[in-house]
Amino acid sequence: MIKTRFTEMFGVKHPIVQGGMQWVGRAELTSAVANAGALGFLTALTQPTPEDLRKEVKRCREMTDQPFGVNLTILPTLVPRPYGEYIDAIIESGVKIVETAGNNPKPFLPKLKNAGIKVIHKCTSVRHGISAEKVGVDAISMDGFECAGHPGEDDIPNLVLLPAAANVINIPMIASGGFGDARGLVAALALGCEGINMGTRFMATQEAPIHDKVKQALVAGDERSTALIFRTMRNTSRVFGNSVAKKAIEMELEGKTIKEIGPLVAGTRGKVVYETGDMEHGIWSAGTVMGIIRDIPTCKALVERIVGEAEEMIRGKLSRAIAA
Amino acid sequence: MIKTRFTEMFGVKHPIVQGGMQWVGRAELTSAVANAGALGFLTALTQPTPEDLRKEVKRCREMTDQPFGVNLTILPTLVPRPYGEYIDAIIESGVKIVETAGNNPKPFLPKLKNAGIKVIHKCTSVRHGISAEKVGVDAISMDGFECAGHPGEDDIPNLVLLPAAANVINIPMIASGGFGDARGLVAALALGCEGINMGTRFMATQEAPIHDKVKQALVAGDERSTALIFRTMRNTSRVFGNSVAKKAIEMELEGKTIKEIGPLVAGTRGKVVYETGDMEHGIWSAGTVMGIIRDIPTCKALVERIVGEAEEMIRGKLSRAIAA
Repeated sequence: MIKTRFTEMFGVKHPIVQGGMQWVGRAELTSAVANAGALGFLTALTQPTPEDLRKEVKRCREMTDQPFGVNLTILPTLVPRPYGEYIDAIIESGVKIVETAGNNPKPFLPKLKNAGIKVIHKCTSVRHGISAEKVGVDAISMDGFECAGHPGEDDIPNLVLLPAAANVINIPMIASGGFGDARGLVAALALGCEGINMGTRFMATQEAPIHDKVKQALVAGDERSTALIFRTMRNTSRVFGNSVAKKAIEMELEGKTIKEIGPLVAGTRGKVVYETGDMEHGIWSAGTVMGIIRDIPTCKALVERIVGEAEEMIRGKLSRAIAA
Repeated sequence: MIKTRFTEMFGVKHPIVQGGMQWVGRAELTSAVANAGALGFLTALTQPTPEDLRKEVKRCREMTDQPFGVNLTILPTLVPRPYGEYIDAIIESGVKIVETAGNNPKPFLPKLKNAGIKVIHKCTSVRHGISAEKVGVDAISMDGFECAGHPGEDDIPNLVLLPAAANVINIPMIASGGFGDARGLVAALALGCEGINMGTRFMATQEAPIHDKVKQALVAGDERSTALIFRTMRNTSRVFGNSVAKKAIEMELEGKTIKEIGPLVAGTRGKVVYETGDMEHGIWSAGTVMGIIRDIPTCKALVERIVGEAEEMIRGKLSRAIAA
């Protein structure tokens, strides 16, 4: 067992979080993570309507009696989403942990805090972490350049980002981006954090509700198998480096507009990849952590392996190094 | 004290290396690092001729009776350097540790090994690390995307690069790029390495033979104060993000040739920055670790602080986390 300020604050057994993932963060995965003693998050916008989110929370609760949360990512999208109504659905469903990402969560905080909800805000920079602490979130999930999805535009890896943030942020920080095993968990604790967030690593589990071909691709890929799209638009996204991602980058460099590239990279195409295993149908998020993903365990086996090996490393290699 | 396979193999007290730095790796710094119980490296090409390198080794030896090494970076330069003659000078000077960087060290290895010299090769990718182990180097200094100077073109941060490399490399690995304090040292040990290499952090020490204004700039800068030049030429270099670096990137994006940009970024201009403190005279290497550099200690104080705090972290925070 590894206990930190995070496990205490959120009432979970292990300092491991399954981060919000569009189309992947469904009840099957989140309940499996919760049952493994880690903190899972349903992804609100994976559900087409707030009413569907209510049903998904209920479905997840039927599969686990452990705490879990809901991720709400507030980013510019082609079709605007009714964020306020999703917030209402979260509150009414009785969920007590929310992960916000994208825009500053300030407008939604009073409502969430009044409902007794703990808020983890995802940031990609020290300055945004400072702002989030100021507006009153309970914890920060700090996302380095390694991460899948949106790493921001600063390109600062976690080895520097996390301790720089820890120098000025007082609330608990979860380290996110590039984490997948015990080595990363111990590194995160050393760098000033209270736990790790894993996205891509949890996609490569038995319970992740995505096609097996996607999981196999994560195992076969390595640390160089990702691509960064939309760099030139300062809306960078780290995705699996398939032919679609390469085509999108090519179009971007040719000066094509987001409207022209849009149909190629539409999120619904990623959904089809996950459902059908047609790997070149669209883009889908994947992080550099592919470099250390080598199997497709159950969530329980994965979480227990990480925590067990981390304990073993602290008790073994690290303690021996200072005792010699 | 922290003992690892690295401290044993190289006969140094602490698992900390001062990496090769053009114009900075002179006897003043290297001897101070050696006297602090860490492994310092003179930079061969900082010396205009092999004969000057012989004199510099002698000068360093007058300032320390502890082991130190010589870095030899083999990269394309505008003016070719007589690498073979530098190797001869190293061997004849009696130095027993060499750090090679840039090209594959294979051609020079028989000569170095025959002279009883241990070779650390600097790599920026898993595949180059595997090659270096195969050709027979003694240790790898693995350089992540965080680093100053040449990070390669893969952009893989150490959080993923190091454990991915540790999965397939058997000889000791030194973690390089983004390291500057105890948190980084413990993270490096956790990620599968046997010590850390610091460049930029050692520039911000009392003994570094560079102008105080440069040291102050490292303290004042943060993790976002670097710039990557020569990306488009696939010869990326991470430097301090001053006006000269920005101008060079601008020229590069305008399609100017290396011959046109060359005078602006000539290494000798960086030398002038270090000597005069005229911060906009040229480009000079600096890493993202600036984000956690907050003072200008002596080498001894820095090394002892890092090792002391690392021991304290393993004995304290980490051991408590598993005991709770």
